Amino acid sequence: MKLSEIGELSLLSILRNRFGKTGAKGVLAGIGDDCAVVRPAGRNLLLTTDMMVEGVHFDMRWTTPYQAGFKLVSVNVSDVYAMGGRPEFLLLNFSAGRSTDAAVFHRIFDGIEKASELYGVSIVGGDISSSERIVLSATVTGYASKVIKRSGARIGDLIYVTGCLGDSACGLQLLKKMMKPVELERRKKGHFDLKWDIVLPLIRRHLMPRAVDPRRIARSATAMIDISDGLLIDLSRICSESKVGAKLYVEQLPVSAQLKRAAEYLDIDPLAFATGGGEDYELLFTEPSGKKVEAICIGEVTKSGITVVDKQGKNKKVSVKGYEHFAV
Amino acid sequence: MKLSEIGELSLLSILRNRFGKTGAKGVLAGIGDDCAVVRPAGRNLLLTTDMMVEGVHFDMRWTTPYQAGFKLVSVNVSDVYAMGGRPEFLLLNFSAGRSTDAAVFHRIFDGIEKASELYGVSIVGGDISSSERIVLSATVTGYASKVIKRSGARIGDLIYVTGCLGDSACGLQLLKKMMKPVELERRKKGHFDLKWDIVLPLIRRHLMPRAVDPRRIARSATAMIDISDGLLIDLSRICSESKVGAKLYVEQLPVSAQLKRAAEYLDIDPLAFATGGGEDYELLFTEPSGKKVEAICIGEVTKSGITVVDKQGKNKKVSVKGYEHFAV
Repeated sequence: MKLSEIGELSLLSILRNRFGKTGAKGVLAGIGDDCAVVRPAGRNLLLTTDMMVEGVHFDMRWTTPYQAGFKLVSVNVSDVYAMGGRPEFLLLNFSAGRSTDAAVFHRIFDGIEKASELYGVSIVGGDISSSERIVLSATVTGYASKVIKRSGARIGDLIYVTGCLGDSACGLQLLKKMMKPVELERRKKGHFDLKWDIVLPLIRRHLMPRAVDPRRIARSATAMIDISDGLLIDLSRICSESKVGAKLYVEQLPVSAQLKRAAEYLDIDPLAFATGGGEDYELLFTEPSGKKVEAICIGEVTKSGITVVDKQGKNKKVSVKGYEHFAV
Repeated sequence: MKLSEIGELSLLSILRNRFGKTGAKGVLAGIGDDCAVVRPAGRNLLLTTDMMVEGVHFDMRWTTPYQAGFKLVSVNVSDVYAMGGRPEFLLLNFSAGRSTDAAVFHRIFDGIEKASELYGVSIVGGDISSSERIVLSATVTGYASKVIKRSGARIGDLIYVTGCLGDSACGLQLLKKMMKPVELERRKKGHFDLKWDIVLPLIRRHLMPRAVDPRRIARSATAMIDISDGLLIDLSRICSESKVGAKLYVEQLPVSAQLKRAAEYLDIDPLAFATGGGEDYELLFTEPSGKKVEAICIGEVTKSGITVVDKQGKNKKVSVKGYEHFAV
């Protein structure tokens, strides 16, 4: 059935029945009034919003609707985590063409629901509308007793990441060759030149990234960001906000065995993925040295400039390339 | 210059310079980090989001970019007002085609800025992205010491609106005939068969609606909603949430002289505009009788059903028609 056969009001009531259960903690009024009314649990309210446009942020040639919905929640939650916060409430904007199949609508919300449960987020409101292509946006609120900004890095701090780098960008390259959606959410497997246990973690990282909760990891972080545009770009944001530089140890950059194998297959330098690949949604943060940190140390904060050095301390040239909208 | 020649990062820094001034009250971190961090002033946090898609919610054939930006803020603020709240913070999502002229981008934000100032709202964050057509969405937060829901109307309450009905829908019909944007924001006039002082208030209500702050008007409101989809549809929402009915007095429905004149020109029943026309963004609310209310009383809350009656108490047949996305 097409969305135009269901109509906006019915779609809204479907969502209301699904997500409108009152009684979620802190929700005084959820879907079904002019605004949601909530009682945030802490005093510092975090607000973030991210948009996903079909054909720009996701491609239905290799993405299931479920995966798009799941990722929408992850990327927003990741922003809250990146400030040291705990996500609480979610508002959605959904828009799609009139001839969109209703199953697409339902599967997108399946993914949104699954991810919301995963992160403990309550869906409290939103708006739906028609458009030419699918446009999703979400706003997530959170709170933080202690906010970790990008601007707090100090010279001498060590630089950490929470996991492997470049998997998502490498996964995207594989998906572009596969040109087929795979329902990972239903444990389906795809067929590809490479073994599936090499392909799976890479494409999963791209299609259904999981935001990393820093609470147990980065207890004394001075600055933090989530890696959405690539290690070097996101690191340069911390450096510029903190008015410092950084030295990265190339040998310490965590690169998965799967990435190495797939990069070989793709004939692309794994380092290019690790330093320039976006959308890993790992956290990148700085902490004073001497702290016990359960993450991977990849460098240290310096006075100025960003350099990548090898074991011998020799500078390695790495090109900075990330994703920029509107770029020529 | 086209957006693709400027690039996302430059666009972001333009916005940051423009809206990123720290020091706005309650803003701990504005544009330029993963999240905005704010301290809401009250305990009941209101959250609302609304999307505006080019070709669906606004038409560039008769809308200036400034007007689209202005309206985006108004429709979101209106939702906060409709809960009895005071708007505080705004997050934006902007997306447009790569070949969009940069002037469009700037003028949209001019309109957003103007409206934000008007309502005392601080812009604290957002996201920009490329898409085929212009898609705008905003999330507005607010607070309310006393929240007014749709569900509080009681039998015997009187029904009020804060201003004339149908002007926006009538203005839209005029714009569809004019087929030309008019820079009302620069006091420009358009040319049309009707006198400009008849046309102006109608098209202005459609292009640059002003949300109505209920604080001084609806002190004892039991239920409230803003009229976005048309009087009868929005009233039926209050009735359905409150499990009551309503009787409207057709002679008391406020209709402007301009609407009467333009409706005659268009050969459309003014009552059809007043009862079915959306996007007036007047407030519709109920209050116990006996209160002094500075708004127009148009009816009373009954046990069930919605009727429109004339002076003699005879039922008038009025067709309910409002805007529904995806409707066939």
